[in-house]
Amino acid sequence: MPAAGSPAARRTEWSLEELVGRVLERQPRALGRAISVLEDARDRGGARDLVGRVYARTGRARLVGITGPPGAGKSTLVDRLARRCRQRGETVGILAVDPTSPFTGGALLGDRVRMQSLYTDPGVFIRSMATRGAMGGLARASRDAVDLLDAAGFDWVLVETVGVGQDEVDVVRTVDSVVLVTVPGLGDEIQAIKAGILEIADVFVINKADRDGVERAFKDLQMMLSIGEHGPWLPPVLKVVASRDEGVDRVLAEMERHREHLVASGELAARRRSHLRLRVETLLKERVVAAADRLLGLESEVERGFAANLDPYRVAERLFAGVVEGAREERLP
Amino acid sequence: MPAAGSPAARRTEWSLEELVGRVLERQPRALGRAISVLEDARDRGGARDLVGRVYARTGRARLVGITGPPGAGKSTLVDRLARRCRQRGETVGILAVDPTSPFTGGALLGDRVRMQSLYTDPGVFIRSMATRGAMGGLARASRDAVDLLDAAGFDWVLVETVGVGQDEVDVVRTVDSVVLVTVPGLGDEIQAIKAGILEIADVFVINKADRDGVERAFKDLQMMLSIGEHGPWLPPVLKVVASRDEGVDRVLAEMERHREHLVASGELAARRRSHLRLRVETLLKERVVAAADRLLGLESEVERGFAANLDPYRVAERLFAGVVEGAREERLP
Repeated sequence: MPAAGSPAARRTEWSLEELVGRVLERQPRALGRAISVLEDARDRGGARDLVGRVYARTGRARLVGITGPPGAGKSTLVDRLARRCRQRGETVGILAVDPTSPFTGGALLGDRVRMQSLYTDPGVFIRSMATRGAMGGLARASRDAVDLLDAAGFDWVLVETVGVGQDEVDVVRTVDSVVLVTVPGLGDEIQAIKAGILEIADVFVINKADRDGVERAFKDLQMMLSIGEHGPWLPPVLKVVASRDEGVDRVLAEMERHREHLVASGELAARRRSHLRLRVETLLKERVVAAADRLLGLESEVERGFAANLDPYRVAERLFAGVVEGAREERLP
Repeated sequence: MPAAGSPAARRTEWSLEELVGRVLERQPRALGRAISVLEDARDRGGARDLVGRVYARTGRARLVGITGPPGAGKSTLVDRLARRCRQRGETVGILAVDPTSPFTGGALLGDRVRMQSLYTDPGVFIRSMATRGAMGGLARASRDAVDLLDAAGFDWVLVETVGVGQDEVDVVRTVDSVVLVTVPGLGDEIQAIKAGILEIADVFVINKADRDGVERAFKDLQMMLSIGEHGPWLPPVLKVVASRDEGVDRVLAEMERHREHLVASGELAARRRSHLRLRVETLLKERVVAAADRLLGLESEVERGFAANLDPYRVAERLFAGVVEGAREERLP
């Protein structure tokens, strides 16, 4: 059987209805094929149709983002968490959002190898999503894939990201709970880098807690949390050695406790509304750029503006006016 | 005299013409006031008008981005570079783009104190720009400010950013040359983090080169450059101790050599066309979101979609259709 996402799977001739039916039955090959559709930057209609068909079935899964710098051991933690969930009879969908780069792409994807024993378990689905196509489309495709796994009935959807690029941050901003994984000894520089993520983390994990410097990292995080703003939920800081399975139970317990807090406080609905807003804004922006390109040709309009030394506001205004005209005319009977 | 950007300066009653006139005369208070206008997220027309008035005067300055992780010594390097330029009789505009965060904001802005001796020099203008207003607007405002300083006749415009958030990366993607500052001993984790920036750096600086690990950092960078893709320009890797003024001359020399390469190869025009494209896309996206909000109310449309359990594509499509209708009707006589 060809692997999900392979060219062979892409060639499979399923109608949209068939594909959706198989996705809702959690068939791994169909899930892989459907995610490839979401990733295809040239076919925006494909993602729209798929999400449109499954959206009514979403909202049941627990959506958790696992983020942190490369080398923090996120894959290992996700691996352990998934095994624990499986022992309790719960199903797990895992999306690994990897920024691709000539320098790092291979190394990050290599981490996936560790999870291979989970691959044979039908209660687990694992998929890596990387920046292959257009810049900025990864967040949209990844978040759409979360919907797919949610609709497919997985109890948990774990989204593992390297919390650095905007794409990864955007994805993590649209899940229910965020676990930030760090390690002792990364120092102030890297702590500062993660600032944007620190503020949206609900559970802090200091992984590799058998290393030197764990107490300092623990105190640093506690101090940052005490000076930062937070609502009624005080994010816990957990010491974990994921590779030895130490502390993983507590991570899962805190993920569940946070979920209960979200439900009880009404915060879950508030977050999901704000997630919808973020996704809508992203789609609206993609929509106008695609329309401008289709109706006017983005490159040629920019070329013309450049030759005439027009400022960017004027070029953008021309494009916007052209989109309004063009889209309107298309709709006329 | 009130500091540029202070409330007193904001209250100054200059007409647009007066403000532009004073900006073109390089009056610090007017520059500060004008940048405050660019930063004002509630007044998009202000930025459009200002950039529109000065744009024809842009294109002369050398635009250089100085980026790298917090703690790499970017401020010190920028400080030394500015002094060197001043000794040669050249004027320097400096924009420090700081991501604001409850955890890091203070520390980064504190770096500015070191530059205070430059503040009294009329041939130098320094301004910090932080994420105060709407998310995502910082890149636009900062890039517009570069135009302002360029039009004002500064020989150099140095844009110092922490190359992590999308805003900072976006700014650096729209200047002519990018200097990446790193330090020995940051390790693989942080090297990977910078991947997105590594690929757009034209000059590499290993600062604090009197520290242990400088040779390893040097070799690592050389290796990454050898496996990465680059065109006819091979980015140099320089060892610098900015705090002791060692190697700063070479950084400046490489900045100039890169500039000459850009001009001679025709790459400067190609880059500036691609910068225009990036800016136009950003503005077009801001434009459609602002129009949707003004014409339909973004919050209420999202609220309605949320209540009806509409998927994000449908909500975005409704907003887009509403923008097309509304903008069209506004334009009818």
